Amino acid sequence: MTHVSIIDVTPRDGLQNEPDILPVATRIALIEKLAQAGLPRIEIGSFVNPKQVPQMAGMDDVARLTLERVRLQHPKHFTALVPNMRGYELATTAGLRQVRLVLAASEALNQANFRRSVAQSLADFAAIAARARADNAAFGVAVGAAFGCPFTGHVTPGQVLAIAQQLVDLGADEIVLADTTGMAVPSQVHRLCVELIAVLYPDTAQGEAVASRPTVTVHFHNTRNTGYANAYAALEAGIRSFDAALGGIGGCPFAPRAVGNIATEDLVHMFNGMGVETGIDLAALLDASNWLSEQMGKSLPALVGKAGPVFDRVNMVS
Amino acid sequence: MTHVSIIDVTPRDGLQNEPDILPVATRIALIEKLAQAGLPRIEIGSFVNPKQVPQMAGMDDVARLTLERVRLQHPKHFTALVPNMRGYELATTAGLRQVRLVLAASEALNQANFRRSVAQSLADFAAIAARARADNAAFGVAVGAAFGCPFTGHVTPGQVLAIAQQLVDLGADEIVLADTTGMAVPSQVHRLCVELIAVLYPDTAQGEAVASRPTVTVHFHNTRNTGYANAYAALEAGIRSFDAALGGIGGCPFAPRAVGNIATEDLVHMFNGMGVETGIDLAALLDASNWLSEQMGKSLPALVGKAGPVFDRVNMVS
Repeated sequence: MTHVSIIDVTPRDGLQNEPDILPVATRIALIEKLAQAGLPRIEIGSFVNPKQVPQMAGMDDVARLTLERVRLQHPKHFTALVPNMRGYELATTAGLRQVRLVLAASEALNQANFRRSVAQSLADFAAIAARARADNAAFGVAVGAAFGCPFTGHVTPGQVLAIAQQLVDLGADEIVLADTTGMAVPSQVHRLCVELIAVLYPDTAQGEAVASRPTVTVHFHNTRNTGYANAYAALEAGIRSFDAALGGIGGCPFAPRAVGNIATEDLVHMFNGMGVETGIDLAALLDASNWLSEQMGKSLPALVGKAGPVFDRVNMVS
Repeated sequence: MTHVSIIDVTPRDGLQNEPDILPVATRIALIEKLAQAGLPRIEIGSFVNPKQVPQMAGMDDVARLTLERVRLQHPKHFTALVPNMRGYELATTAGLRQVRLVLAASEALNQANFRRSVAQSLADFAAIAARARADNAAFGVAVGAAFGCPFTGHVTPGQVLAIAQQLVDLGADEIVLADTTGMAVPSQVHRLCVELIAVLYPDTAQGEAVASRPTVTVHFHNTRNTGYANAYAALEAGIRSFDAALGGIGGCPFAPRAVGNIATEDLVHMFNGMGVETGIDLAALLDASNWLSEQMGKSLPALVGKAGPVFDRVNMVS
């Protein structure tokens, strides 16, 4: 049986673009529910300036309370997005032992979001990587716009592979291929994932994990209804690690009717039906999604909770 | 370049479960807009009892006006669902030269929907097939619940393949594998399509059309967010014919928040991005979808029109 790992990013990518700001206590309750449903990893937030992203205010408390209240009951792995060394220091001071850095594969988006070139981002990461090595902390890097840039359009596999090679050289533990604005199509995903796996694991069977090489995670948005097809294509290419957000939240504030991340519950349901083991309790996840919908006071984009699940648990149908 | 054929089923499967009943003039305008956008085939409705399905009232007029007004301008292929010999006679009397019959792969659903066994449905089809041969009319058969039954759960590939073999023997021009209630997952779709293609075209390359053998069309609902992944899996398996409905309408009346068919515009957009040629004008399709949304007075489930297209036309990215 194929086993995959799902990283729930609801407390970070799910919430950061929502107009409603959830208080720290609600975010801790969310993280606790995700952990109880069996999520093997949770991205608990982003150590950014709360003046710029008020949805992420109180991250020190979120991290501290997560580690106090959730970790002891459920020894899960928690991560957080950090934009720079300052964010890294805040995250590790709060007790996290794993962070995710972020850059964009396209120069235009990297300049717009981070006000520096891709090369400068990578140079910054080298300093953080050295610190992480000294601290014995793990770090991943999310490569945004890996399948297309909202400003310049097409992003070539070569651009992403060149960045990935530099991340390997920096000792990154994880490379996240992120389809930031939902531009990817499945044939493109399949091709890039196959090529990246071939670069990262040249001596092993497709997708086989090697401790000294980064895990490849894929991160899809369902903005144009290709998110789940992209996840399937990535799985077929050998990817075994997937980001998702409860309820499919995470809509971009600049395209208010566009939906956000692929929904954790719908991804688990699809994998259940395919006989792919996630280790996640779908019923608990659907309860958590209903709870989140109530907290946010609106219907969320995910569909399995509305239609009712067919595959309550992993169930090999083909 | 791969070429596929998309059959728009909005006037039938799209509308038949909607609470609002569109008048004949609106349905004709819809069919005209679809034809103008380049749809190679359109399912214009269902010749059922309008007392049971009031959405399909006036089918004689819909067929007659379609053939008068639309066919002459745009020599498209029109089809309609017919439940029995009476429906066949109404459709062909109205001038259609192509119909689709329907049964369910599961005995339970066939009994519930059609009040007869699968064997009885196939016997009825034999009589209609003989009439169609005499009339030089084409007929396809939609096999509902081909990937799962809402009453009995799992449907095996063997059940579907046995029915398909009998449809070949009857001389069917098309076999439509329909995921009636959105239960399919992509690995299952891939397997069944590969197996069916191997049965239908044992002597040819995968997916190659043979005039004397039925075309295989797939028909997916996005009820649980697997519809587009299923379409991608079917394409990978060699399928080249896809049903879809404008705006993704067609929600089941018994699960009001569940979405319906995969959306024609989102499927065309995904195929455009993959370099798969549909021959359809996406901009015209998006205009038609906006118009339909206005006619129905509500937002439709499709996403590309809301987020904005990335791939305006077929555009090989991988």
